[in-house]
Amino acid sequence: MNFQDLIYAKRDGGVLTEAQIRWFINAFTKNEIPDEQAGSFLMAVFFQGLNKEELSVWTDAMIKSGEILDLSSVGKPTVDKHSTGGVGDKISLPLCPLVASFGAAVPQLSGRGLGTFGGTLDKMESVSGFNITLSNEKMIQQLKDVGVFITAAGAGLAPADRKMYSFRDVIGTVECISLIASSIMSKKIAEGTQSLVLDVKAGRGAFMKDFSRAKQLAETMVEIGNKAGVKTVALITQMDTPLGNAVGNALEVSESIDVLNGKGPQDVIEITLALAKEMLQLAGINKDPATGLKDGTALQVWKKMIIAQGGNPDIEIPVAKKKENVVATQSGYITDLDAYAIGLSAWRLGAGRAKKEDAVSKTAGIICLAKEGDYVEKDQPVLELHIDDASRLPLAKEALKNAFTIGAEPKEKRKIILERIS
Amino acid sequence: MNFQDLIYAKRDGGVLTEAQIRWFINAFTKNEIPDEQAGSFLMAVFFQGLNKEELSVWTDAMIKSGEILDLSSVGKPTVDKHSTGGVGDKISLPLCPLVASFGAAVPQLSGRGLGTFGGTLDKMESVSGFNITLSNEKMIQQLKDVGVFITAAGAGLAPADRKMYSFRDVIGTVECISLIASSIMSKKIAEGTQSLVLDVKAGRGAFMKDFSRAKQLAETMVEIGNKAGVKTVALITQMDTPLGNAVGNALEVSESIDVLNGKGPQDVIEITLALAKEMLQLAGINKDPATGLKDGTALQVWKKMIIAQGGNPDIEIPVAKKKENVVATQSGYITDLDAYAIGLSAWRLGAGRAKKEDAVSKTAGIICLAKEGDYVEKDQPVLELHIDDASRLPLAKEALKNAFTIGAEPKEKRKIILERIS
Repeated sequence: MNFQDLIYAKRDGGVLTEAQIRWFINAFTKNEIPDEQAGSFLMAVFFQGLNKEELSVWTDAMIKSGEILDLSSVGKPTVDKHSTGGVGDKISLPLCPLVASFGAAVPQLSGRGLGTFGGTLDKMESVSGFNITLSNEKMIQQLKDVGVFITAAGAGLAPADRKMYSFRDVIGTVECISLIASSIMSKKIAEGTQSLVLDVKAGRGAFMKDFSRAKQLAETMVEIGNKAGVKTVALITQMDTPLGNAVGNALEVSESIDVLNGKGPQDVIEITLALAKEMLQLAGINKDPATGLKDGTALQVWKKMIIAQGGNPDIEIPVAKKKENVVATQSGYITDLDAYAIGLSAWRLGAGRAKKEDAVSKTAGIICLAKEGDYVEKDQPVLELHIDDASRLPLAKEALKNAFTIGAEPKEKRKIILERIS
Repeated sequence: MNFQDLIYAKRDGGVLTEAQIRWFINAFTKNEIPDEQAGSFLMAVFFQGLNKEELSVWTDAMIKSGEILDLSSVGKPTVDKHSTGGVGDKISLPLCPLVASFGAAVPQLSGRGLGTFGGTLDKMESVSGFNITLSNEKMIQQLKDVGVFITAAGAGLAPADRKMYSFRDVIGTVECISLIASSIMSKKIAEGTQSLVLDVKAGRGAFMKDFSRAKQLAETMVEIGNKAGVKTVALITQMDTPLGNAVGNALEVSESIDVLNGKGPQDVIEITLALAKEMLQLAGINKDPATGLKDGTALQVWKKMIIAQGGNPDIEIPVAKKKENVVATQSGYITDLDAYAIGLSAWRLGAGRAKKEDAVSKTAGIICLAKEGDYVEKDQPVLELHIDDASRLPLAKEALKNAFTIGAEPKEKRKIILERIS
C-alpha cells in the first residue's frame, strides 16, 4: 500500500477503502508511518471529514487495535454512559450506582480531567482509599457483586486511540468531529457494554460551544454505536452555566452524595434521572429511576462500590481549610452565571490540570451559592472559593471578573435537556 | 513562538503574521519543527492557501534562508526565464543564447527532469563535455564574456526550498499554487536577476492541466516577482500537444541547434521569439529578436557558451542506433496529437526519470514526423521512436495507443500563446 495514495484520496475529497483505513490504523499504531505523512493525512481528514462508512471502519479498526472486554459472564444487561464534559459535571457519580441499583451492570471506564474539564477519576480519588485500577477479572466480579465500577481504562483498550489522541493534540486536529467521535466510541465499544447513553454538552463551558456542532457529534456517535451493535442514545444538554452548585473534585463528590441521599440541586437531579431513564430503557428495565434516589438503594450501591474498590464510605470527604467569598455588587436577580469563567477559576485554584502529568487538588474549587434566577442582596456572597494553595487565588479571582451578571428582572430559566438523538 | 498557534491560525483560515512566517521557514529549514507538525501545517496551507502578503514574506524568507547571487558587477542588464515544463519544451536552449546575443546577461540556473517533464540540464548534458556546475565567480565571468550560462542551482541557493520541495512531495502537498509559486520564485529571485519572463504551460502535457489554474499560478508568480523588485512577466502557453517535433534529450538539442540556424519547427520559433521579445523589453533592449536567429549571432553565442562550459560544439549530438516507426492506420488529417502520451512514451523509452537518483538516456526519445494539421497517408510513419534500451519498447508503445487521432477534415490550429500576464 502506498500511503501517499491515501493522502491524495482524502485531500481531494475521495472516499477511502476499508482496506486502506484498516492498513492506516494498524501501521499508525505500530509507528510505521512517517510522522510528516501521518500529520498531513490527519489534517486532510480534518478538512474533508470521514463519511459514515469510513468512520465505521475507522472506529472498528481502532477497537481491534487492542483487547475487547468480554462482559458476557456478568449475567446482567450492561449499560454505560459517557459525557463530553462540562463544568460541575459530576453526573456519573450518582448516575452509575443509581442505574446499577435497578439490576443493570454499569462498566464505567473513565478518564482524568484536562483544562477546565474535571475528570471522573480525579473526583473519585477524593474518596479516601478509592482505587481506580482494577484487573479485568476484578471488574467482572464487581459487576456481578455490586453492579458497577468506576475505573481507568486499561492500556490494552484501543491503543490506536491513545496514540492518535496525543498525536492529534500536537498537530492541531483535535477539533474534528469524525476523529472525536471515533476516539470516544472506540473506547466505549471496546469496553464491551451492550448499550450506551451519551451526554453531549453544548455551550460556553463545554468542548462544543455550538449546539449545531454538538448535535453533529451526537448524531455521529449514535450512528457509530448502533452500527457496531451497541444500542446508543444521546442527550444534548446545556453547558452555558455550571451543573449544580459544586465545581471541584471533593466538592462534587459531596454534592453527588447529597443527590444519592435524595437531596442536591434540582438540575443535577433532573439530568441524572433523564440519563438513568435512558440507560434503564436500553437495559430493558422498565422502572422509574427516581425511586432509587428516594429510598436509599442507590446510596447503598455507591457505598458497596467504594468498599469494593478499597475506599471507606464513612470517612468524611475532605474540605479546604481556607474559603473566600465573592459577593454581589448590587441587589437583583442573577441573569447569567458563566460556566467557562467558573470552570477556569476552579481550574486556576487547582481543581484541574494544565498538562496530563500534573496533580490536582482534592479540595480546591468553587461553590455557587446562588445560581441563575436567584435573587441576591448587595454584598450577599454569590461564590465561595475553596482555597488549597493561596498563591493561586489572584489569577483565580481574575477569571471571575465577569462570571455573573445581576439584573432587575429574572431571566427565563435555561432548558437543561436540549435534544434527544437515537 | 508556539507552533500550534500557527497550525490553528492557518487551519481556521486566519492570516499568519510576518514574524510567524519567518520563524516557521527558519525553524523548518533547520529541522527544528517536529515532522508531524510541519506535515499538518503544510496540509492546512494546501487547503487555506496564503494571501499575497503572506506569500511575499514566505518567499522572501525562503530566499534569505541562503545566499543571494550578486550580479551587479556583470555590467549588463540581467534577465532570465523559467518554464513550468512541458513535452518537447527545449525553449531555453535557443532562447537564452539568442537574448544574450543582444547584449543582455542571462543567468539560467536550471534543473533536471522528473516524470514526463524533461530538464534543461539533462538536455545540455547530451552535449559532449558540457559542465553544468560552475562556481559563482565563473558564472559572473561567463556573463561578462559570453552573456549566458546554463548551470545547476548551487546548494547554497534557497536551501529552505530544497527541504520544502522534497518534504511536500512526501506529504502530498505538491499541487498547491502558493507553494509552487514560492518555490519557483525563491530560486529565481535568489539567483540575482533583475528581470524574469515566465513560461507557464497549460494543458494535458503540463503540470497545470487547467488554463485557470495555470493563470492563477502565473498571476501569483508575477505578483511575487514584482513585489520583490524583479520585473516579471508571464506568458501562458499551450501544452496539449508537444512543442516542436523532438522529445528526448539529445533530440531536443539537435532541434534547438536547427532553430539557432534559422530553421526548426514553426511553433518552437514562435514561442522562442515571443519569450525573447519579452526578455529584451524587460532588459531595456529595443530590438527584433528574429534577426539573431537569421544572421547566426545567436548560434555564435551558443557555441561560445558550450566552449566556456567545457563542451565541444563541433562534436555531433549523439543519436540512437535503433529506431522504429509508428504509422498511420488510415489516411487523413492529424486532428489530435497528445502531449501527455508522447511525453509518457518518451519517458518510458528512457528520456526521463522516475526518481531523482535515476540516470536518463541521452538518445532515447520520439520524433513527431507529423503534427496536428498535417495530412498523412495510410501506413505513413507518424512517430519515430529512438530506442536506447529495447526492453523499454513494449511499455513505451503501449503509451502511444491513443497518442494521435486522424480525421477527414483538418482541425483549427491551436493558439500557442494563450495569455500574457504582467
